[in-house]
Amino acid sequence: MPHEPNRMCGGSRGVSPRVGIIGGGQLARMLFESSIPLGIDVRVLVRSEADAAATVVPDVIVGDWDDLETLVGFAEGCDAVTFDHELVSPAVLGAFEELGAVLHPRARAMTLASDKAAQRELATAVGIGVAPHVETVSPSDLRDAVGEIGFPAVVKATRGGYDGRAVWWTHGPSDLDALIGAYDFDAGPLLVEPVLAISAELATLVARRGNGEHVRYPVVRTEQSDGICIAVTAPADTTPELVTAAQEGAVALADALDYVGVLAVEYFVVDGTLLLNELAPRPHNSGHYTIDACVTSQFENHLRAVLDWPLGDPSLITPAAVMANLIASSPDRLALGDVVPPSGARVHLYGKDPFPGRKVGHVTVCGRDQVALRRTALQVAHQLTGPALEPVRQAVPVVTP
Amino acid sequence: MPHEPNRMCGGSRGVSPRVGIIGGGQLARMLFESSIPLGIDVRVLVRSEADAAATVVPDVIVGDWDDLETLVGFAEGCDAVTFDHELVSPAVLGAFEELGAVLHPRARAMTLASDKAAQRELATAVGIGVAPHVETVSPSDLRDAVGEIGFPAVVKATRGGYDGRAVWWTHGPSDLDALIGAYDFDAGPLLVEPVLAISAELATLVARRGNGEHVRYPVVRTEQSDGICIAVTAPADTTPELVTAAQEGAVALADALDYVGVLAVEYFVVDGTLLLNELAPRPHNSGHYTIDACVTSQFENHLRAVLDWPLGDPSLITPAAVMANLIASSPDRLALGDVVPPSGARVHLYGKDPFPGRKVGHVTVCGRDQVALRRTALQVAHQLTGPALEPVRQAVPVVTP
Repeated sequence: MPHEPNRMCGGSRGVSPRVGIIGGGQLARMLFESSIPLGIDVRVLVRSEADAAATVVPDVIVGDWDDLETLVGFAEGCDAVTFDHELVSPAVLGAFEELGAVLHPRARAMTLASDKAAQRELATAVGIGVAPHVETVSPSDLRDAVGEIGFPAVVKATRGGYDGRAVWWTHGPSDLDALIGAYDFDAGPLLVEPVLAISAELATLVARRGNGEHVRYPVVRTEQSDGICIAVTAPADTTPELVTAAQEGAVALADALDYVGVLAVEYFVVDGTLLLNELAPRPHNSGHYTIDACVTSQFENHLRAVLDWPLGDPSLITPAAVMANLIASSPDRLALGDVVPPSGARVHLYGKDPFPGRKVGHVTVCGRDQVALRRTALQVAHQLTGPALEPVRQAVPVVTP
Repeated sequence: MPHEPNRMCGGSRGVSPRVGIIGGGQLARMLFESSIPLGIDVRVLVRSEADAAATVVPDVIVGDWDDLETLVGFAEGCDAVTFDHELVSPAVLGAFEELGAVLHPRARAMTLASDKAAQRELATAVGIGVAPHVETVSPSDLRDAVGEIGFPAVVKATRGGYDGRAVWWTHGPSDLDALIGAYDFDAGPLLVEPVLAISAELATLVARRGNGEHVRYPVVRTEQSDGICIAVTAPADTTPELVTAAQEGAVALADALDYVGVLAVEYFVVDGTLLLNELAPRPHNSGHYTIDACVTSQFENHLRAVLDWPLGDPSLITPAAVMANLIASSPDRLALGDVVPPSGARVHLYGKDPFPGRKVGHVTVCGRDQVALRRTALQVAHQLTGPALEPVRQAVPVVTP
């Protein structure tokens, strides 16, 4: 293998620091955007030159992030390596780190934080509530668990789920049979949960350096439709007790993981208390509002943490903000040139080829009146993406189906 | 010449629009930053691969912007060409446009707006006050004019001045002799002015499309030290009458120039009325605050105008904002990793090798109390650039010496 362990991630001192990002999606693209005013160089490892980040970052390597040799070559000259996603296999990640790569978050944190079963054990260990659930490793296990919980039951893969993927609602025996017919337990265990009476979904972010220094972002309210986040309102209109619990829970989880970078934590509110929904070991859709609404965005603070720089002020610079995702309704690119920019909205496109249901960007509206901001943000999203994205008629969040 | 006029600036329809930027300084860098969330591709024509924009933009051409063939090759595949600076010679610009290049602003507007004598004629024609001045084309002309005005007199080159360059104060005969010994009138005429009793310096921006549609930015107050802008406060604490006059003056000038893009207009306040200081046919230092403080930054609206897209909302999203320039005091790069980011400040570095007196970045602080914001912004600038940049002790602006 052609690597030189002492130089890998040794960086290029005296000039700009360089951060390598595994993955080329919109998170890598927005990390790159935030790197420019900080004087940080970015290199991305992408699957395709058409990836969202690959079209804007000058330093691009196209390759397989599950190939150790590719990773080592990619890390050469980087001061640290971080992630656009949690798709690298844990075994490869561990081997990469053992070869001397400076990974932030580290391989252990990435592996635990991207496994729904491990997330729950961790939450329980630090005193955060979790939904009642049964871990199943075989079809008969799964049948037993669903039998115990009763229909409808929610079944979730422990790894690989996002945007409503790898989450299945079983309303009756035929749903269960179909799932068992389609799922290969070699891919990992499945969790089975009862349907929860969720009154709200909250999320927050913590940015943490290796020395434990951290900053807490505001707690926000998220809204889902068909398992995809459609809107995020900051700050969440909830009790001070829940805000504190959500933030302290995020810090406790980050500490338990010895986490470096931005960690996103999503909660359900059930019967007035927080239950962990899930973790994301990276900047997160629920934090995109921070680009426009906070002194220091989640992307800037992720880079700061990864480079072990002092962290920036996470405060809101506006009384309130609402972000709405742009979810494509057709294969046509959004044509900003044809749309009068709606008053107050900042548009962020990801440079992605659209297909119906694909997140291709987001808009953020800053101001004071959350109801008005939410209406504007959803109207703008509707205006940009076309008729398929009807503004939701009510603010009551629905569980990821 | 290898160009095909019909394809030059014909763009690449169906995919992302592409804007070519002549010059690779911080304005091109910030135009690129703002292009990413809009899904616009950017190409830069730079003198050196070390230029501020060249290190972050993937599509870079290194070449001489005064060479017509280079310009034509550069424009190939661009939907429009715009500017980081006004250094291209007017003759080359005119020839480039005649070959079919889509220039925004157009060659005529660039040429007039970057000539201090033409600016004053234009201002007078649209009813904006200008300082009393005499245009001189020879040493004897210059001696006569200074004799008439008396010492001290301010002498300004008509082209090429920025950041206090090409502006000379003559306090007595020896200053005048030195200037005459050093200046070559083949470079253009010199303007001679009396020293003005300036009570404030104001600036504003207008963004204008080819169809005349325009948006007006807030009027700001600028502060200079040694001819370099050190701080910009938005909105300016001045009378509604002066705000209206400043904005209407900018619109009138843009209309007179049939201007496309962002036009910056700087004014002196003398005896309670506005006098034109100068124009800049591009985004401008006095508008950097718009990145953090306005719904649509000057850079986004410049790109929108250049592509003939509907213009974005120029409103402030915060009650007030202060920008302070980061002016290097040593040849060492600013080391953000060693500095605790000060509460509330957003830092923007330009990736430039510093030398004492060079603008290498800026910071913006948003909030409510302008006095406190100004103090914070200058303190942060001081903290980042070191002891040579003492915060100015008073807010009284000084004339460009």
